[in-house]
Amino acid sequence: MEYSFSEKMRNLKPSAIREIFKSLSDPTIISFSGGNPAPETFPIAEISKISADIYASDGAAALQYNISEGYPPLRAALTSRMHDKFSIGSDGDDLIVVSGGAQGIELAAKVLCNEGDAVICEDPTFIGALNAFRTNGAVPVGVPAAGGIRPEALEAAIKAHPEAKMVYLIPNFHNPMGTTMPLETRAAIYDICKRHGIIIFEDNPYGELRFAGEDVPTIKSLDRDDIVIYCSTFSKILSAGMRVGYVLAPAALTQKMVVCKQVEDVHTNTFFQMVCHRYMTEYDLDGHIRDIRALYRHKSKLMLDCLDASMPKEVTYTRPDGGLFIWCTMPDGYTCDGVVKAALDRKVAVVPGTAFNCDETAPSPSFRLNYSMPSDEQIERGVKALSDAVKASL
Amino acid sequence: MEYSFSEKMRNLKPSAIREIFKSLSDPTIISFSGGNPAPETFPIAEISKISADIYASDGAAALQYNISEGYPPLRAALTSRMHDKFSIGSDGDDLIVVSGGAQGIELAAKVLCNEGDAVICEDPTFIGALNAFRTNGAVPVGVPAAGGIRPEALEAAIKAHPEAKMVYLIPNFHNPMGTTMPLETRAAIYDICKRHGIIIFEDNPYGELRFAGEDVPTIKSLDRDDIVIYCSTFSKILSAGMRVGYVLAPAALTQKMVVCKQVEDVHTNTFFQMVCHRYMTEYDLDGHIRDIRALYRHKSKLMLDCLDASMPKEVTYTRPDGGLFIWCTMPDGYTCDGVVKAALDRKVAVVPGTAFNCDETAPSPSFRLNYSMPSDEQIERGVKALSDAVKASL
Repeated sequence: MEYSFSEKMRNLKPSAIREIFKSLSDPTIISFSGGNPAPETFPIAEISKISADIYASDGAAALQYNISEGYPPLRAALTSRMHDKFSIGSDGDDLIVVSGGAQGIELAAKVLCNEGDAVICEDPTFIGALNAFRTNGAVPVGVPAAGGIRPEALEAAIKAHPEAKMVYLIPNFHNPMGTTMPLETRAAIYDICKRHGIIIFEDNPYGELRFAGEDVPTIKSLDRDDIVIYCSTFSKILSAGMRVGYVLAPAALTQKMVVCKQVEDVHTNTFFQMVCHRYMTEYDLDGHIRDIRALYRHKSKLMLDCLDASMPKEVTYTRPDGGLFIWCTMPDGYTCDGVVKAALDRKVAVVPGTAFNCDETAPSPSFRLNYSMPSDEQIERGVKALSDAVKASL
Repeated sequence: MEYSFSEKMRNLKPSAIREIFKSLSDPTIISFSGGNPAPETFPIAEISKISADIYASDGAAALQYNISEGYPPLRAALTSRMHDKFSIGSDGDDLIVVSGGAQGIELAAKVLCNEGDAVICEDPTFIGALNAFRTNGAVPVGVPAAGGIRPEALEAAIKAHPEAKMVYLIPNFHNPMGTTMPLETRAAIYDICKRHGIIIFEDNPYGELRFAGEDVPTIKSLDRDDIVIYCSTFSKILSAGMRVGYVLAPAALTQKMVVCKQVEDVHTNTFFQMVCHRYMTEYDLDGHIRDIRALYRHKSKLMLDCLDASMPKEVTYTRPDGGLFIWCTMPDGYTCDGVVKAALDRKVAVVPGTAFNCDETAPSPSFRLNYSMPSDEQIERGVKALSDAVKASL
């Protein structure tokens, strides 16, 4: 049988990250290529206790179908938290639960984008978002973002692409770059999008993981015109495997997204929505997040210290104030391909920058490092081997 | 802000079932409108015990990201079970875990259908499938199926719609009709689809819930030509709220589906994939299913006895051998609208047949009854009130 796949599948290759994951079955490889939270940040004992309580008091409801919008007490708790802690959410907004932040991006693309529509993105950006746009027939249009996106460049892209439906941004601790967008840039981009009547998708999976500097207000907190879809997740603060995220957006948009969500998975796992709600209301979520920040402050500093000590000076890298990633860039004239291969030969896995390009065929001088998963010893040994790989490639 | 939604959203209304669910917040209403499994079929004590074991022995992995294909031990256990119990799965097939059967349908539509492609369906059929096709730009084309679909009618539809990419079927205990497709029909449809080079999506969420008659081989068990996508779920045998289903299909198709699944939710809830695996390998799943069958045998018989006793003879209804639903049809000249309203006035909720029509604007003489959720007392009282509503409508 010859299968005839939909057009949407044409531009979609298995992600480079997925392929690298597969090579990681070799336990002697040090992986800086993941995006996983550190497993020691999962409050296993508390979640186990909460789970036992739910089975005892509410087991049948926890294992039964629920409504597509999400478990109502969790929606209420999240709505309050977003309001009190981040000053976001107006009367015209609604909050829905999704099966991880990825689903929020995918649903937004589905309800807004026709075949051939454009989504303006920071270039490089999160590969899962790029594929969400592609599987909905939309074309990612990149705005160069190394060192920070420039509002004028974004506006030029919007003008050049009247078929653009959405601007996709990761303002905090960007994946893959680790950078944070200053408030002036956020405000300028908001004004541009408002003027052009274009939706902003603000993806904020790492926002709570700040370990240096001061919080910057979200773009959503500036949203007086109902143009911002805000998306976040429990993946990096409680558990990634449970797949619980949320979207806060104008109700006219969430209503459509809920209909599509019902089609995709009916609703998010009921039991773990209850777990999240109980953790938020019965335990010290903010205290737990403080502990995670301390851990990542330590790990990021260790990786940066190692890079400072052994990496050739021609290679530059970002110094993140939060999140999970450091972005390294080779000097002019080099692409990442050689060093990625040389690192793997030395048993260190990093993600080539090409994986995050809007144009998958374009080369990249950069590669991404993750510091949340490796142990301290692996960070020390791995950065040394990586620096050797760089030296061999220069 | 005026939002401009994608074309795919145009033909999509919130499901009639969803809307009826909302009216069910009134606790005095007897609902025959659900599709939920009976909560007493959830093995809460066993799942609670398994959960405690997982947290104790494997907590970090259970709360961490996993691969999009699904938790490998669960995939292996399901592959064995499908082979040993249902004689399905060949060397060219692969089994992937999805977030409920609904996601399996949606992913198949996404990888196969372009804007304007047709999916041939039994008419009426599962509303979630219809919406999955619509949100992927495909058009459901109905083949009349009251009393069973005729292979010649299916072939005529395929010939009339060269843009058809897939035939969607629920051969066992059909939703909404409760009917089961005979083996001759399955074989004839398989031959037709093979001849026309068209994929069959065999949706089998209720297949294990047979409480009368003999099992009929699945269409997938006839698949020597790699044209059948088989989809089932744990929703009706362990827990609906955990959202764990599976797809067994030619590997060339599951590979594409996995890439799209990664975009939609990265992977299915890790913890509950482990729960399913442990339940399958450490507990008596077949014994548990026998208990569920006994319960539904009792409940369906009670509802049929009540219908036989009080329903006017002009109204016909199916006598299912399994599953969750009975399909009632008004005599010639009547649509379901009047009786659905009259029933709701008498505090009984049923689902109008129009909700399951491929053409949403077409009238229907039928309505769907569910017997898994109401108590025995509610079945007795509800059928009496429903019969009164029918009498008032005739």
